[in-house]
Amino acid sequence: MKVVNFNKIKGEEVSDPGAKDVTVRWLISKNDGAPNFAMRLFEIKPGGFTPYHQHQWEHEVFILKGDGSLVTEGKASPLKPGDAVFVPGGENHQFKNVSEEDLIFLCLIPHKV
Amino acid sequence: MKVVNFNKIKGEEVSDPGAKDVTVRWLISKNDGAPNFAMRLFEIKPGGFTPYHQHQWEHEVFILKGDGSLVTEGKASPLKPGDAVFVPGGENHQFKNVSEEDLIFLCLIPHKV
Repeated sequence: MKVVNFNKIKGEEVSDPGAKDVTVRWLISKNDGAPNFAMRLFEIKPGGFTPYHQHQWEHEVFILKGDGSLVTEGKASPLKPGDAVFVPGGENHQFKNVSEEDLIFLCLIPHKV
Repeated sequence: MKVVNFNKIKGEEVSDPGAKDVTVRWLISKNDGAPNFAMRLFEIKPGGFTPYHQHQWEHEVFILKGDGSLVTEGKASPLKPGDAVFVPGGENHQFKNVSEEDLIFLCLIPHKV
């Protein structure tokens, strides 16, 4: 059993091509013995964004703070605190911060990526 | 792709033996095409609790609001907003609300339960 506050976990800059001002903290991972999926917390600064990309694994997301936009093929969906987001594998997607405060959300992925 | 605010999803009373004043909302599940794991949001009223029990699957939890206590074998750990909790399969556990406001948290589980 593990209990840890997110702010005790070091944030790492996301250096993937196409990312701007994004930090990730791995809250629960294989290192904790989690057998199936990982919990990460992302922070995007105002004006920042994740890459517009796709991959074979899904995302399960929960918006904690800030206002964002989820860009998918031909569409942009507003995001606000309390929103749950499911992005299936194989769909292009990008998370953008469109607010003046940090956009903070959880994003969970299966290990088998 | 799905975006839904948690308050648009109907809460269901948890009627499991040993539960008191617990509501669950299934935010992302098999019904959405999620292939590996499900995201649920739990609300426990002041004085309420989940059953003290164990099962073979793990929990990945994130505390959104309120103060709680995680009871495990021989131990009680305080819970506060921003805490991430990993409960491995096979460990006894119980979530209790020890505050005067609702205790609200996400709890994710694998499908293969």
